[in-house]
Amino acid sequence: MENEERLNRMRQAMERENLDAMVLCLPENVLLLSGYWPMIGASVLVFPQDGTPTCINAHCYEAEANLSLWKADVLNYRYGVLLAVERTEALRQILLGINQAHSWRRIGYEERFQTVAPSWNAAEFLIPGAQTRELLSSVFERSQLVDVSALLETQRLRKTPFEAEKLRIASEISCFGLAAFERSARAGTSGVVLAAEVEREVMARGTGYKGALRVRAFAQVAVGAEESAVGYRPNEISTTRKLHNGDVALLELGVVADGYWADRTRLRVAGTPSEEQSRIFEIVRQAQQSAVARIRQGVTGAQVDEAARSVIRAAGLGDCFPHITGHGLGFRYHESAPILSPDSSQTLEEGMLTSVEPGVYEPRFGGFRLEDDVLVTRTGAEVLGPFPMALAEQVVKAES
Amino acid sequence: MENEERLNRMRQAMERENLDAMVLCLPENVLLLSGYWPMIGASVLVFPQDGTPTCINAHCYEAEANLSLWKADVLNYRYGVLLAVERTEALRQILLGINQAHSWRRIGYEERFQTVAPSWNAAEFLIPGAQTRELLSSVFERSQLVDVSALLETQRLRKTPFEAEKLRIASEISCFGLAAFERSARAGTSGVVLAAEVEREVMARGTGYKGALRVRAFAQVAVGAEESAVGYRPNEISTTRKLHNGDVALLELGVVADGYWADRTRLRVAGTPSEEQSRIFEIVRQAQQSAVARIRQGVTGAQVDEAARSVIRAAGLGDCFPHITGHGLGFRYHESAPILSPDSSQTLEEGMLTSVEPGVYEPRFGGFRLEDDVLVTRTGAEVLGPFPMALAEQVVKAES
Repeated sequence: MENEERLNRMRQAMERENLDAMVLCLPENVLLLSGYWPMIGASVLVFPQDGTPTCINAHCYEAEANLSLWKADVLNYRYGVLLAVERTEALRQILLGINQAHSWRRIGYEERFQTVAPSWNAAEFLIPGAQTRELLSSVFERSQLVDVSALLETQRLRKTPFEAEKLRIASEISCFGLAAFERSARAGTSGVVLAAEVEREVMARGTGYKGALRVRAFAQVAVGAEESAVGYRPNEISTTRKLHNGDVALLELGVVADGYWADRTRLRVAGTPSEEQSRIFEIVRQAQQSAVARIRQGVTGAQVDEAARSVIRAAGLGDCFPHITGHGLGFRYHESAPILSPDSSQTLEEGMLTSVEPGVYEPRFGGFRLEDDVLVTRTGAEVLGPFPMALAEQVVKAES
Repeated sequence: MENEERLNRMRQAMERENLDAMVLCLPENVLLLSGYWPMIGASVLVFPQDGTPTCINAHCYEAEANLSLWKADVLNYRYGVLLAVERTEALRQILLGINQAHSWRRIGYEERFQTVAPSWNAAEFLIPGAQTRELLSSVFERSQLVDVSALLETQRLRKTPFEAEKLRIASEISCFGLAAFERSARAGTSGVVLAAEVEREVMARGTGYKGALRVRAFAQVAVGAEESAVGYRPNEISTTRKLHNGDVALLELGVVADGYWADRTRLRVAGTPSEEQSRIFEIVRQAQQSAVARIRQGVTGAQVDEAARSVIRAAGLGDCFPHITGHGLGFRYHESAPILSPDSSQTLEEGMLTSVEPGVYEPRFGGFRLEDDVLVTRTGAEVLGPFPMALAEQVVKAES
């Protein structure tokens, strides 16, 4: 068992909270405690405070579960074929059997998750709704059901060495997309074609990389000053607008590899950057690196934010940086902590993973942001999947 | 207003159910009744039985909402920037204002959705969880909150002419992916590269096609007999296994264009198909076309299923067809009806959209499935985005 630290920490947290077991449906939480990233959200993990977990799985994904599942009992139910019992009923029968074998008093479930990551099938997935709540109430009618959403989110913040290695792989895979972006960002190419190309490269080259089984990218490319000037939004929109010589292109890239996420941003100018573009780029780059340099165990989110923000403020662009400097991630594209913002008193702890992504946005010159994912270590910070930051090939050559 | 029929039908249904208003958060339902497919699930639609709807929107997507929103009042709240009020609080203030202006007794909300489609950002989205239920209870404390999940799902089944046209566009866009699959399915290419190529083509060529603004594909390619023999599963898994000469490749393709979905399947053999492959393909093709030919208003799901199943049974392959013949779709990759299965007494109605996708799966020869989306018309059926079915280029040539 490679991730015993995760299971031990969770069991200790459950003991503190007097939880006898947890029943988890969200793929990101099943992954956390079983090693298996469900295909479609039809898997349920029963995780007792003491004893072996049980993974209830759709029969047709038995082989996939076996590939990655840690020590667990597996109970399969028939799913998606003729004569299969309806899903909720099938789960009810299995859970009733598990309940009879135990006398659990307090059982945790996922009540409050409102933001979730997809399973591998990002086209559609199952979420815990009223049916799930009713199912749990009917099965565990003698137990107290306790919402453990906050507990799970908190436990997820500090990554174990096993998880850090998985996240390192996801970030390394994201570099295939960054390289494709830089190669393809030329005059005549549209944002949507750039995004499509980046996604293809990540999926085609990333699958199989260091054993990654299921890889997917979500790329967004804003092209030109007008589009990129609103690039501070939670999502940019890739359009058919083509790059012209001198246009900036802003890539926002989410990558998931076997359930572990990376979040990157890079910039490129078609042709030769103007002096102003180079100046803005350099300010953002210095802000980003200043924040990374500030990261270590014990520092607050506000201190890291200020390290980036002060650089941008000193350049007279403070009003052009309307968002936070970074956010947690790992089992999702965004996690609840740490938040690197002017009012964040959250203290960085070893094993936390945060994006570092300052940016400036102005209708005149457009939007400039640079982003890496940074792991907090005891003595400092580790940038996962290092990849150069450059606005154009020429800039790199001129510097060397 | 191009989709008045949808609003009228919904208002009539609400009148029958004594619903004064609905408060909707899921992007697929906001789209249904406002014309706007939210970017990230942070939009809320308040749809009164009588009067103008209100779209509560994240301020940074004002332009995108204006592009497609039908007649509605728009209230923007600041989202995702420094000093913005927390999202639930911002929504609470706006909803309280709306509530004060009305005396709604019964208000519908989305309690039971467990399967949902992503908004455009398939990487992450917001779902109605406990916070949303608590928010609605606190705002509408003098009203009765009614779950309208079933009402919405039922109303969504019969598509209006406006929606049929959007779905036609989505299916036509899916053809870019089918064409890329057939072009690229050659010896030496892996399933994951094929899937990535198909997704790229759909996004790059589909965006802008007949005005489509936001397009995304989800492709899965099983390669060879072993992988495709389990191709009846809800998801196939694209791997790094390469096509060899004589291998079959099975493409399952979901496409979303501005919130409207298409669901297609095609087959290809690298090189020249064997006699057995050609025979199996022809059986599946005939089963698929027999089912399509059976579709018209008034026919049951079981009758359409039998039209396909009887062809496969007559060929001695009845045991190799373990799944249903088809399912509804439109605002999601899968909708609750119609179901084309041996025990489906659901009657097809004009405007319903169903996949038609019989298949046979056997470890010896692999998995063969063909799928189109079919609109039920008064007199028969319309295949959306027609695209040829052929196992190899040579087969087409040999027949002509």
